[in-house]
Amino acid sequence: SKYEYVKDFELDDTLLPNCWIVVRIDGKGFTRFSELHKFEKPNDKRALDLMDACAKEVLNEFPDVRIAFGESDEYSFVLHKSAKLYGRRSSKIVSILVSCFSANYVRQWSNFFGNQPLSSTPMFDGRAILYPDVKTLRDYLTWRQVDTHINNQYNTCFWALVHQAGLSNAEAQATLKGTDTGAKNELLFSQFGINYTHLPEQFKKGSVIIRRHQEFVAKHQDDGTAVVRTRRVPVVMYCDIIKEQPFWSENADLLS
Amino acid sequence: SKYEYVKDFELDDTLLPNCWIVVRIDGKGFTRFSELHKFEKPNDKRALDLMDACAKEVLNEFPDVRIAFGESDEYSFVLHKSAKLYGRRSSKIVSILVSCFSANYVRQWSNFFGNQPLSSTPMFDGRAILYPDVKTLRDYLTWRQVDTHINNQYNTCFWALVHQAGLSNAEAQATLKGTDTGAKNELLFSQFGINYTHLPEQFKKGSVIIRRHQEFVAKHQDDGTAVVRTRRVPVVMYCDIIKEQPFWSENADLLS
Amino acid sequence: SKYEYVKDFELDDTLLPNCWIVVRIDGKGFTRFSELHKFEKPNDKRALDLMDACAKEVLNEFPDVRIAFGESDEYSFVLHKSAKLYGRRSSKIVSILVSCFSANYVRQWSNFFGNQPLSSTPMFDGRAILYPDVKTLRDYLTWRQVDTHINNQYNTCFWALVHQAGLSNAEAQATLKGTDTGAKNELLFSQFGINYTHLPEQFKKGSVIIRRHQEFVAKHQDDGTAVVRTRRVPVVMYCDIIKEQPFWSENADLLS
Amino acid sequence: SKYEYVKDFELDDTLLPNCWIVVRIDGKGFTRFSELHKFEKPNDKRALDLMDACAKEVLNEFPDVRIAFGESDEYSFVLHKSAKLYGRRSSKIVSILVSCFSANYVRQWSNFFGNQPLSSTPMFDGRAILYPDVKTLRDYLTWRQVDTHINNQYNTCFWALVHQAGLSNAEAQATLKGTDTGAKNELLFSQFGINYTHLPEQFKKGSVIIRRHQEFVAKHQDDGTAVVRTRRVPVVMYCDIIKEQPFWSENADLLS
Ligand SMILES: Nc1nc2c(ncn2[C@H]2C[C@H](O)[C@@H](COP(=O)(O)OP(=O)(O)OP(=O)(O)O)O2)c(=O)[nH]1
Ligand SMILES: Nc1nc2c(ncn2[C@H]2C[C@H](O)[C@@H](COP(=O)(O)OP(=O)(O)OP(=O)(O)O)O2)c(=O)[nH]1
Ligand SMILES: Nc1nc2c(ncn2[C@H]2C[C@H](O)[C@@H](COP(=O)(O)OP(=O)(O)OP(=O)(O)O)O2)c(=O)[nH]1
Ligand SMILES: Nc1nc2c(ncn2[C@H]2C[C@H](O)[C@@H](COP(=O)(O)OP(=O)(O)OP(=O)(O)O)O2)c(=O)[nH]1
Ligand SMILES: O=P(O)(O)OP(=O)(O)OP(=O)(O)O
Ligand SMILES: O=P(O)(O)OP(=O)(O)OP(=O)(O)O
Ligand SMILES: O=P(O)(O)OP(=O)(O)OP(=O)(O)O
Ligand SMILES: O=P(O)(O)OP(=O)(O)OP(=O)(O)O
Ligand SMILES: [Mg+2]
Ligand SMILES: [Mg+2]
Ligand SMILES: [Mg+2]
Ligand SMILES: [Mg+2]
Ligand SMILES: [Mg+2]
Ligand SMILES: [Mg+2]
Ligand SMILES: [Mg+2]
Ligand SMILES: [Mg+2]
Ligand SMILES: [Mg+2]
Ligand SMILES: [Mg+2]
Ligand SMILES: [Mg+2]
Ligand SMILES: [Mg+2]
Repeated sequence: SKYEYVKDFELDDTLLPNCWIVVRIDGKGFTRFSELHKFEKPNDKRALDLMDACAKEVLNEFPDVRIAFGESDEYSFVLHKSAKLYGRRSSKIVSILVSCFSANYVRQWSNFFGNQPLSSTPMFDGRAILYPDVKTLRDYLTWRQVDTHINNQYNTCFWALVHQAGLSNAEAQATLKGTDTGAKNELLFSQFGINYTHLPEQFKKGSVIIRRHQEFVAKHQDDGTAVVRTRRVPVVMYCDIIKEQPFWSENADLLS
Repeated sequence: SKYEYVKDFELDDTLLPNCWIVVRIDGKGFTRFSELHKFEKPNDKRALDLMDACAKEVLNEFPDVRIAFGESDEYSFVLHKSAKLYGRRSSKIVSILVSCFSANYVRQWSNFFGNQPLSSTPMFDGRAILYPDVKTLRDYLTWRQVDTHINNQYNTCFWALVHQAGLSNAEAQATLKGTDTGAKNELLFSQFGINYTHLPEQFKKGSVIIRRHQEFVAKHQDDGTAVVRTRRVPVVMYCDIIKEQPFWSENADLLS
Repeated sequence: SKYEYVKDFELDDTLLPNCWIVVRIDGKGFTRFSELHKFEKPNDKRALDLMDACAKEVLNEFPDVRIAFGESDEYSFVLHKSAKLYGRRSSKIVSILVSCFSANYVRQWSNFFGNQPLSSTPMFDGRAILYPDVKTLRDYLTWRQVDTHINNQYNTCFWALVHQAGLSNAEAQATLKGTDTGAKNELLFSQFGINYTHLPEQFKKGSVIIRRHQEFVAKHQDDGTAVVRTRRVPVVMYCDIIKEQPFWSENADLLS
Repeated sequence: SKYEYVKDFELDDTLLPNCWIVVRIDGKGFTRFSELHKFEKPNDKRALDLMDACAKEVLNEFPDVRIAFGESDEYSFVLHKSAKLYGRRSSKIVSILVSCFSANYVRQWSNFFGNQPLSSTPMFDGRAILYPDVKTLRDYLTWRQVDTHINNQYNTCFWALVHQAGLSNAEAQATLKGTDTGAKNELLFSQFGINYTHLPEQFKKGSVIIRRHQEFVAKHQDDGTAVVRTRRVPVVMYCDIIKEQPFWSENADLLS
């Protein structure tokens, strides 16, 4: 029709070929969302497990995602540099991944929060970032996991001071100001008997998702014998992805 | 930290100021999704109403959206040219709107489909398109509503031929090939007794959402008198947005 | 060949349709270039005339340029919003205009500087900026002409203080600090007998280039009669382009 | 001023960090330009030497350029992936390089063409292309040098057929249609006694520019002894840059 010309205003947003694509999503206003839904502080295992479950669905849906890393209200999805989905159109890729995640967050809410109603709409922003080489990509992942540690250690101290020692938020903040990582661990141990290293790995390290071979019963033969095949399914791990050993040496194929 | 440098790889994607922003979302693989969930053909009122309900939530959430237009598995949201949300960052705007829509689609599913389970994850892609002036923006909206009419008329004929006349898909397609709009109306009337103009406006015109003043009881005074105030709420209309009269002349403020 | 794939790394940089395109170029390191070539301070008519001559060649070469404005070592070229040259590819447009200007600067140097040798390579950077409507485009042009006035008035005072009153650069700067436009004119008049309004319009207003009809002798008939035709040629004017009258009302077609 | 807001319409065009930047420039309408200036066919050594001289000036001006490759009316400049010039702003980089080249083309014209006047303005377009790794960058350079060979061999045959055998352009084209590289060499040798391998390397391979250490007399001591220092200066080579040996192994530092 004579109106088709309006389509010319859609500009190309193809992502540079041969670069690793990171799509990072982050919850919109989760400070408020977490309070509204009474998330445990500083970490609510139900909330984190729900995030992990949604991220697994993203991997199930998009084979180009090689590894994902999540913490707090955010998740990063790494697409292989050779990925061709949607012709590498940035808006398409970002919007579809965000959509998959958001819809799953609602779909799976009750699996983790039971009868507690979802009383506002969870939303996530998303963006695509390109890394031209494995070194910068690994540095990206390191950046996120270092962030996980720093935030978690701080928040653990903060809420212990508030909930257990009865400090006000401002007092807790003042107490922690300028303390280094050693001092924070010391404070946790001496004042609250908390050994930081004994906290759940999920809280300290965040969540890593990769694909693993898994056996499954494909069918049964006439005589009832099960035919076992293997497929690759996303699995969640709470482990270090900063150091080379053991994660990257054991999973060298991930970024090859 | 020394890894912060990876943030420099996030490039700016600010949208040109002073242009109308259209965010169009479209269901991923809804050919399959609509079959899986046994949508009525060619139009399932439950599905369309659900789309409209999600779009209304987008307007509730984002004041910059002035008007929205929906049909089939797609919705277009028009943000005022002066919109400043997220500094006009394209990925942010597109992803958040898509996320809002997708999460609401799941949240509100059962309001429209009752007990019928949601058996796969609904996903939507999204994109931002800029229109520098009201003329091209209006042409965009016209383009979508013309599309609604063409598709709906075709689909109405197609499924009448298949469901009522018992033709195969291929036969129905062959029958309709090359017919103009008059011939299609004629076919519907003479062969199936369907007067196209009597079909629901929602199917023929798609859905338009704008904000309307609505009175509500803000509070009650001590003596029990209701205090009535007005607020602007999104309302769905099924009307022509191609011609100047009456829609655009009555709603001149929309694009001012 | 099997190496053709490298062309896929060339990404599309098409400029949004229906927007006015401004290409602004600016001399690289002209602080140094003007000293090296002993430009008169603050304005060297030869240098400004050379800039104007180069800009005229840009208009001769590119019919899409409707109006150009120049001052100091910069020039802005306004391409009509409907321009289609090079498919509106940004790099193509910017680079070709810059190239045309730069090559002409060298070609025409001796027309303005006579025997004085060109002792370094003049270079210009360039950029494309989009304006979605005439209002913002006019504000752009106003911005540049206001800048011309401010710079020229300041520089006139500055160099009068240095050259005529014998102040050091730092003293001249200190003297002018915080003075408004009235005080500067007053200083020029009382201390140096310079009536600012009597300075050359080219220095005060910058240069405006548009196309004007001009008669020319196309050929001579057998009896010797000259056949006069008209063509549109770029002409330089030094006039106000901020106010509506008389420039814009007389040249209403420029931005239509 | 209140007009400063127009600067917000200048959008960021920063190039992705850590990628090799190739700026390729190409003469505008050199089919015509070469005829107008009576370039020898198929290769005019004066024209090619002028191109090389301009490219050397680009290397003198921009230390980030590691290697350049030229043929016909085009030149490719490779900037190191860590280059930070102009904050990696694409328009800035492309326009300044094009400007440097274009201005030099005019400045140095008479060094190569003597008294022959420059009778039109030479112009070049430019673009930036990113390559995320050395492999794709090397493939880019290979792509250009393969192109040089193919074009040169074809053009050598074509003009021999036209100039020496007296064929029309159309006949020459028809004669060459579908011939492979061996057949073309055979034709040159048997019909015109031209041994393709004996043609100038500059024509067959194009021009490669890298920096080489060169000794120069920095000053003279009081006793008249010359103080010799070394600096790196751009040198032009006509050599294979497709194979690893000897170019890339001897110049391993270029892309490190
Ligand atoms: N209590 C609790 N809060 C959490 C948990 N996970 C995330 N949150 C909260 C803590 C932070 O306030 C917030 C995440 O920080 P952000 O920087 O993403 O801020 P927020 O989402 O509020 O704003 P944004 O829209 O992302 O700019 O989510 C959790 O497991 N428990
Ligand atoms: N039966 C039925 N189908 C509908 C209704 N609304 C939309 N659909 C279906 C018809 C089309 O096959 C499909 C929309 O067409 P699209 O061009 O968006 O294709 P689809 O979503 O399959 O692929 P895409 O991922 O968008 O490229 O959705 C409805 O109310 N009833
Ligand atoms: N003496 C003299 N100088 C002039 C004339 N026109 C321009 N200039 C000089 C004054 C400024 O120092 C310079 C223009 O200022 P810019 O902000 O463009 O600085 P410049 O070109 O040095 O650096 P850039 O590479 O543009 O960042 O050119 C003139 O007619 N006479
Ligand atoms: N006779 C002669 N012609 C040359 C020489 N070097 C380049 N040329 C001509 C041959 C080609 O027609 C032209 C280069 O081809 P292009 O594909 O760049 O075409 P052209 O510059 O005409 O158009 P463009 O503006 O780049 O699209 O320049 C030379 O040394 N001698
Ligand atoms: O959201 P923050 O504060 O963690 O940091 P960011 O996501 O980089 O900021 P933005 O969401 O504004 O891009
Ligand atoms: O999806 P279509 O076929 O309606 O048309 P489109 O949305 O413009 O195509 P794409 O989704 O590939 O941008
Ligand atoms: O060059 P300036 O300082 O006049 O201002 P600008 O041109 O906007 O700055 P830049 O050249 O860095 O874009
Ligand atoms: O100019 P060509 O034909 O050699 O090929 P190109 O340079 O890739 O084409 P364009 O100049 O249109 O980008
Ligand atoms: Mg954020
Ligand atoms: Mg958040
Ligand atoms: Mg967060
Ligand atoms: Mg689509
Ligand atoms: Mg769809
Ligand atoms: Mg659709
Ligand atoms: Mg500048
Ligand atoms: Mg300058
Ligand atoms: Mg300047
Ligand atoms: Mg070209
Ligand atoms: Mg060319
Ligand atoms: Mg060429």
